[in-house]
Amino acid sequence: MPLKTPEEYVESLRALDLRAYIGGELVKSVVDSPMIAPHINTVAKTYELAHIPEHRDVMTAVSHLTGERIHRYTHMFQSADDLVKKIQMLRLLGQVTGTCFQRCVGLDALNATYAVTYEVDQANGTDYHERFKRYLLDVQSQDLMLAGAMTDPKGHRAKRPSEQEDPDAFVRVVERRPDGVVIRGAKLHNTGGINSHEVLVLPGTGLIPGEEDWAIACAVPADAPGVTFIFGRQSNDSRKLEGGCDIGNPRFGVVGGEAMVVFEDVFVPNERIFLNGETGHVGQLVNYFATWHRANYGGCKGGNADVLIGATAKMTKVLGTDKNAVVKDKLIEMIHMNETTYASAIGASAMGYPLPCGSYMVDAMMANTVKLNITRNVYQIGRLSHDLSGGFLATMPDQKALENPEIGHLVRKYHTANPEYDVDERIKLGRYIENMTSVTTLVEAMHGAGSPQAQRIVMLGQAQLDKKMAMADQVINGTDDVAGLPLPGRRRPADD
Amino acid sequence: MPLKTPEEYVESLRALDLRAYIGGELVKSVVDSPMIAPHINTVAKTYELAHIPEHRDVMTAVSHLTGERIHRYTHMFQSADDLVKKIQMLRLLGQVTGTCFQRCVGLDALNATYAVTYEVDQANGTDYHERFKRYLLDVQSQDLMLAGAMTDPKGHRAKRPSEQEDPDAFVRVVERRPDGVVIRGAKLHNTGGINSHEVLVLPGTGLIPGEEDWAIACAVPADAPGVTFIFGRQSNDSRKLEGGCDIGNPRFGVVGGEAMVVFEDVFVPNERIFLNGETGHVGQLVNYFATWHRANYGGCKGGNADVLIGATAKMTKVLGTDKNAVVKDKLIEMIHMNETTYASAIGASAMGYPLPCGSYMVDAMMANTVKLNITRNVYQIGRLSHDLSGGFLATMPDQKALENPEIGHLVRKYHTANPEYDVDERIKLGRYIENMTSVTTLVEAMHGAGSPQAQRIVMLGQAQLDKKMAMADQVINGTDDVAGLPLPGRRRPADD
Amino acid sequence: MPLKTPEEYVESLRALDLRAYIGGELVKSVVDSPMIAPHINTVAKTYELAHIPEHRDVMTAVSHLTGERIHRYTHMFQSADDLVKKIQMLRLLGQVTGTCFQRCVGLDALNATYAVTYEVDQANGTDYHERFKRYLLDVQSQDLMLAGAMTDPKGHRAKRPSEQEDPDAFVRVVERRPDGVVIRGAKLHNTGGINSHEVLVLPGTGLIPGEEDWAIACAVPADAPGVTFIFGRQSNDSRKLEGGCDIGNPRFGVVGGEAMVVFEDVFVPNERIFLNGETGHVGQLVNYFATWHRANYGGCKGGNADVLIGATAKMTKVLGTDKNAVVKDKLIEMIHMNETTYASAIGASAMGYPLPCGSYMVDAMMANTVKLNITRNVYQIGRLSHDLSGGFLATMPDQKALENPEIGHLVRKYHTANPEYDVDERIKLGRYIENMTSVTTLVEAMHGAGSPQAQRIVMLGQAQLDKKMAMADQVINGTDDVAGLPLPGRRRPADD
Amino acid sequence: MPLKTPEEYVESLRALDLRAYIGGELVKSVVDSPMIAPHINTVAKTYELAHIPEHRDVMTAVSHLTGERIHRYTHMFQSADDLVKKIQMLRLLGQVTGTCFQRCVGLDALNATYAVTYEVDQANGTDYHERFKRYLLDVQSQDLMLAGAMTDPKGHRAKRPSEQEDPDAFVRVVERRPDGVVIRGAKLHNTGGINSHEVLVLPGTGLIPGEEDWAIACAVPADAPGVTFIFGRQSNDSRKLEGGCDIGNPRFGVVGGEAMVVFEDVFVPNERIFLNGETGHVGQLVNYFATWHRANYGGCKGGNADVLIGATAKMTKVLGTDKNAVVKDKLIEMIHMNETTYASAIGASAMGYPLPCGSYMVDAMMANTVKLNITRNVYQIGRLSHDLSGGFLATMPDQKALENPEIGHLVRKYHTANPEYDVDERIKLGRYIENMTSVTTLVEAMHGAGSPQAQRIVMLGQAQLDKKMAMADQVINGTDDVAGLPLPGRRRPADD
Repeated sequence: MPLKTPEEYVESLRALDLRAYIGGELVKSVVDSPMIAPHINTVAKTYELAHIPEHRDVMTAVSHLTGERIHRYTHMFQSADDLVKKIQMLRLLGQVTGTCFQRCVGLDALNATYAVTYEVDQANGTDYHERFKRYLLDVQSQDLMLAGAMTDPKGHRAKRPSEQEDPDAFVRVVERRPDGVVIRGAKLHNTGGINSHEVLVLPGTGLIPGEEDWAIACAVPADAPGVTFIFGRQSNDSRKLEGGCDIGNPRFGVVGGEAMVVFEDVFVPNERIFLNGETGHVGQLVNYFATWHRANYGGCKGGNADVLIGATAKMTKVLGTDKNAVVKDKLIEMIHMNETTYASAIGASAMGYPLPCGSYMVDAMMANTVKLNITRNVYQIGRLSHDLSGGFLATMPDQKALENPEIGHLVRKYHTANPEYDVDERIKLGRYIENMTSVTTLVEAMHGAGSPQAQRIVMLGQAQLDKKMAMADQVINGTDDVAGLPLPGRRRPADD
Repeated sequence: MPLKTPEEYVESLRALDLRAYIGGELVKSVVDSPMIAPHINTVAKTYELAHIPEHRDVMTAVSHLTGERIHRYTHMFQSADDLVKKIQMLRLLGQVTGTCFQRCVGLDALNATYAVTYEVDQANGTDYHERFKRYLLDVQSQDLMLAGAMTDPKGHRAKRPSEQEDPDAFVRVVERRPDGVVIRGAKLHNTGGINSHEVLVLPGTGLIPGEEDWAIACAVPADAPGVTFIFGRQSNDSRKLEGGCDIGNPRFGVVGGEAMVVFEDVFVPNERIFLNGETGHVGQLVNYFATWHRANYGGCKGGNADVLIGATAKMTKVLGTDKNAVVKDKLIEMIHMNETTYASAIGASAMGYPLPCGSYMVDAMMANTVKLNITRNVYQIGRLSHDLSGGFLATMPDQKALENPEIGHLVRKYHTANPEYDVDERIKLGRYIENMTSVTTLVEAMHGAGSPQAQRIVMLGQAQLDKKMAMADQVINGTDDVAGLPLPGRRRPADD
Repeated sequence: MPLKTPEEYVESLRALDLRAYIGGELVKSVVDSPMIAPHINTVAKTYELAHIPEHRDVMTAVSHLTGERIHRYTHMFQSADDLVKKIQMLRLLGQVTGTCFQRCVGLDALNATYAVTYEVDQANGTDYHERFKRYLLDVQSQDLMLAGAMTDPKGHRAKRPSEQEDPDAFVRVVERRPDGVVIRGAKLHNTGGINSHEVLVLPGTGLIPGEEDWAIACAVPADAPGVTFIFGRQSNDSRKLEGGCDIGNPRFGVVGGEAMVVFEDVFVPNERIFLNGETGHVGQLVNYFATWHRANYGGCKGGNADVLIGATAKMTKVLGTDKNAVVKDKLIEMIHMNETTYASAIGASAMGYPLPCGSYMVDAMMANTVKLNITRNVYQIGRLSHDLSGGFLATMPDQKALENPEIGHLVRKYHTANPEYDVDERIKLGRYIENMTSVTTLVEAMHGAGSPQAQRIVMLGQAQLDKKMAMADQVINGTDDVAGLPLPGRRRPADD
Repeated sequence: MPLKTPEEYVESLRALDLRAYIGGELVKSVVDSPMIAPHINTVAKTYELAHIPEHRDVMTAVSHLTGERIHRYTHMFQSADDLVKKIQMLRLLGQVTGTCFQRCVGLDALNATYAVTYEVDQANGTDYHERFKRYLLDVQSQDLMLAGAMTDPKGHRAKRPSEQEDPDAFVRVVERRPDGVVIRGAKLHNTGGINSHEVLVLPGTGLIPGEEDWAIACAVPADAPGVTFIFGRQSNDSRKLEGGCDIGNPRFGVVGGEAMVVFEDVFVPNERIFLNGETGHVGQLVNYFATWHRANYGGCKGGNADVLIGATAKMTKVLGTDKNAVVKDKLIEMIHMNETTYASAIGASAMGYPLPCGSYMVDAMMANTVKLNITRNVYQIGRLSHDLSGGFLATMPDQKALENPEIGHLVRKYHTANPEYDVDERIKLGRYIENMTSVTTLVEAMHGAGSPQAQRIVMLGQAQLDKKMAMADQVINGTDDVAGLPLPGRRRPADD
């Protein structure tokens, strides 16, 4: 049966022989690292919910390759309804975990590769698509977790891949062999890679002729020789090592456990190569991925914000301010911003249309509005949460103070607000809010799936300003009116 | 064939014997009034486009009563797809007319009455629904234009209908007779009523027991005895009487030709009465109407903003600023705000679900976000249009100055910007922008389909804060984690 | 005595022989034109208040040339206190007239010319400054109203004056004679020119060598041969010709009666020429003017918004919503935005510093923030006013409907809200709000004293990013710490 | 000489016998705690700069009590210029430290006590003011650092002090003795207390008759028996214990080292009591303090934002995006928001007016706009900094990874952007930006000097809506116009 249980997922990670550095040190087992465990526990929920009958419809789908019921996270989008269900799945998972659950990059990268390999083959007579389908069958049948690896280090931002001082600033092929290629470079901000089975490496930017070496899409086992994960720091991450209520997210991560994944001359065999030098198709690959991915944020951040709004609403009860009309109005504003992006993501999905390969693509304009609004609304929602939660957020006592017999009672006494609620509850809510509005979380909302300017550029292209100018011309100067109506525009001197 | 042509629509208006005051004076024929002609010409487009094969799918539908193809503006929403197509129709019409095309209130009022009469009958054993279906057949077969009449004068805003000093502040039944009722009162901001065939009168607010006299829903011919339309003033309305380029909208109206419609003891026969004293169902009627109607703004204002954005983009070409990166960025911002509300309206529609009567209702939360965003975005879009169009908007020369042989050449000479464009074009664009960002237009966006606070109250109800608080509790305190993971939350003292 | 009475001001206008076109027609007397009378009445208030002892301190000043008490509107700023008092005067006049009172452009243009003539003379050994002082003495002793004329038509916005297809797109010297120069061109958006005594013509943009013909600053009597005023249209302007309550501003104008003033080969004698070909000083002249002028908006718009906020607050009483907490919160937001720009304008003035000529200049950065905030806040204040005032703003009945015996009683009956207030009051408030949030008013706030992008460019220059980067470097990497403190930064490996 | 050196300040702290808990553990010496050292180093700058001749004018003042030159942080505001200089001092210190320098609460608390003791004595014939002056002489002559302690725990927010279940939720007198009082309770968010000499305890909210026990103002040595400081957690605080570049602020704190200070039945002798039961004056005391303090934020946050803007501008150079027009536009927006609040703070100060005691108070309306804008602008500035700094902010590598010989070279290689800049610089900038936009920093901006709603309530009171309504009435209905002008309002039918 192609649906892993949470336990199977965790065990399958244990079976990997990953090279991973956390806190600058090589770890023996990421599964046993308290820094990574919350991220694994988050992903485990994606496996768990697929087994719950109530959620079967959104969490699973029927494979178009096999007809078997598979995890939606390995499914190719076969209809607008599939796209809508994806957004609903994301909101659900966001509500259940209150954070990033990491599998979306892999999903959208799979879909983008599926779509573009088809188009490359149509254009060039290659057979990448069949090759990719074989790979996909494996992914689906084993319910693998994939980390999409898109974002290159990029070096000097005003220069192209081929203009960089260090050509490795974008992942590239350093050797082409009969049986495969050798790649070098790194991918940044790699969500969930450290607890994935596979890394799907795709180019992160459009390429031009002459940049064939950077035009490489391929799948790499997470524990392939030459692959190294280097974990960055999240806000307040070391509190995880302390335990106690200071952690904020005792069970789940803060965002997606982003790591740098380095490829030190990694060999990729032919059957795992899905694009190799076709620069003319790279822009479309990036575009497909980004467009699907940008719509997602209306789902996952919607679910996360549900939890944040819930925590904030609870905090107003703890403080005793919940009856205040202006307090309610601020909660409404949080809700409004959150539902705006969710509604748009649903809209983008419902307007899905078929690509040449038969998969469905979301509406690009709508998907980009989702992400661009996220880069603002997540900050505003956080700001309002801070407003309603009080200065307490900045000066919360720590676990050790609570436990210290000399001062613990004072800390409790003076942090009791509405006496119906326990101080621990206030602190836990506060710490959760602290983490979910931290720099790590905010920046992920800002730059995940592309920086705001990337969305704006797409929008300008999608907007067809020429058509809008023609509309204005027709509205103002058109002549196809009902005859006989005394329209003021008709009575111009030139009309006499 | 149940699809009127534009000419038939205009002729059918001529056949009415309306009592209408425009500019404080009784008019013989609204069709021949240059103050009303642009509004009629706008509605005529709704009839015209239904005959164009390219638009047939969005402009028409198949009646669920007769199986005949009818105008979508008389159709009961039978599916989520119907709801989506409505939004698409609105955007199309907004693009074609660049203004309000007036038939939406009637459409949503028809649908709301259809749905609630069914529910009332189910609850009370009455037969309003069958009665309404007979009325609806007439509307569909004749392709009638209906004006929904919702907004009561409301008197003192802090008082209920039954508490008002003047009980007529909300339309009410003043006499109940065996063959019908006599109603008195007025409806404000009545969009399109003055060029409609019928007025569908619905209560404008929820009612409580004891307010049965205000619980009246009924259809009144626009020219029924006792019905008087009193037209208000729009921004710059009297320019229509001057002709020339100062008009701004030479062909179409500015918003929807809102009028006050007064009912001076108007008799309504039983077959036109669809609710009569059932106070307990009035809240639902208002709610159904408002929810459908709020989603619309993502469509119609989307189309209008397309034209406004087009006019603004053209203006930057006329000025020679179109290559500037910051200018482009402002156009993008206009596009972004516009597409956000459109996307949300599509989302609200795609999430449509069946009501007891079988019709489809939009998602309430999403529909309310649409309207609330409109109350902000329309202003911001207008502001950016002003920014890009220049101070010229405030000091444009008038038609008479252009025509005056003594100064006309000076006016032209000194208003020429990029010499590739004619001054007249600059002025026409400017006047259109002026009108479409005028107080009349902005206020319609603010208060149409309910004031922003009305949307916020619905949102708070829809948000289910209790569930969100439970989510927060589960995320923070849940215990259903994968066993064996070294989660930091596990290492609390209590766990030892 | 150098303080004119309002009546003397009006009479002095009558004595002029202006060539002015209003509504495209030559008017015999602007004073007797109902289109211009409200603007004149507004300026008359500036004269009136100077005679009221209570306002003497802000409305008048002591001439640094003569020691006589003069109108502050003809005074050179001699101290930071003078700058502060100017802002206070503007707020007062804004509160008294509820609109633009027109004399500020002239005042700031006088001051800019005073300052730059001094600097030109210092640099070049010319005697413009003495010449200008003689002119200024006349202005002060006669309490003249001056219209500063800055904004050129500008033609193609991406081209310099010398690159335009039509060289007259910027006012220029077409002939240099021993006794003076002949100028040609036009100035747009000329505030108050049509009811001024003098027009002070200054270049509107910085110039480069080779553009000497455009480097001309001079004073021209408003009725000099060859000068023509062509009045543009304001929102709802023709209602003034109707009389009645539809006017909105029955006594005062909407913004400043902006006109295009055309110079058809106007001769200017030497004694009225204050810059003539010195391109290198034009940038400073424009800069001085703009900087002073941008701070003003915190004063005048502050006063105007006081009236608008007052009208809106009154409207909530008329409606019966004034007790609502969220309504109050919106009024507070209006107040907050208004006071922000006022406070900044006071700050810019209090930080005034002496120029080489001895006059005081406001802080440039602060002055630019004022104006940039105005381009946003005026819109937001208007939006909130619309929110609180209701849909009524878009559909208000007209005066003729109120007076019509057949329907007047209905209009009154159904527009009565809180019965403690008369319908006429509601309408008057509504019409005032309509006008003061109209396109004319908003666009003036957007583009007066320069478009927002102009302010941003100045800010970037003022911000000294290099210094800020150095600050960041010092904060992060500085080494001048107190010895012995266990600073974490000290414990870097390199320190061992 | 009454100006301590930085070293003297540090030594004087060592001399104290504080009871302080950091990280839940009692520390022997706060001076030797790496958690506190950065905060001490920050304050040391306030002492250091007072000795630098260039800054003497803003950093010092002449005592009105002794005529001696003292630190401005112990000075009573004697003029509007003193108020302006305070803001300038704050901006300077903000630029030098890039964080909160802690002495402002004490300064404003001293001034508030000075002013209110005078007023109490005038009203009641008491001698608090002379007693306070004696205390002040000590403070000035020893250049003491004072921590103002205002914010009570407040318990249930909807209840008054006397209604709380735990009466200690607000600091109160539990025993009155001939020689003094005994106080109990706690103050939260106490800025700088842990490295201060004295704590000045003031009531945190207005009181009513019957709440005399809570009406206590007094000075307590930081190491008085019964006083305990309990330090809360800041964002990423434990990184300080690691050293290295992950710290973000290697030299200075993040915000002000806020602690909870607990008073466990602390005896205060009479000479240190400055208010004792006079409930009627408590509101004014709170108001004076808050008003002065709210203006400050335009200064200190202005300086901090200078550093943040500088760090962000530098980051764009490191990335190679600094030439992009939209990037520059975002930097301008950061500058604009920052300068708006600074300008307003200067305005509030320049409008300072004398209180009964002779000290100068800032303009209350303006001061409140400053703080309210801060609660928004600090978030927006942070958001734009994130936008320009890139996703890197969320995934930066840690010091240990950089130092690890196995991976350090990879981390460096793949984080090199513009090769002109070193990776370490990029990381240091990133970590500084991370800290200065963290929850601790943002929440301090939100809630310091009172939550936004507190500012709004003051504004509503200050706005005098009645006067504004009267202005509107006069503008619309006034009759004092110049006779003979054809004002449209004159030509109403009623006028005939």
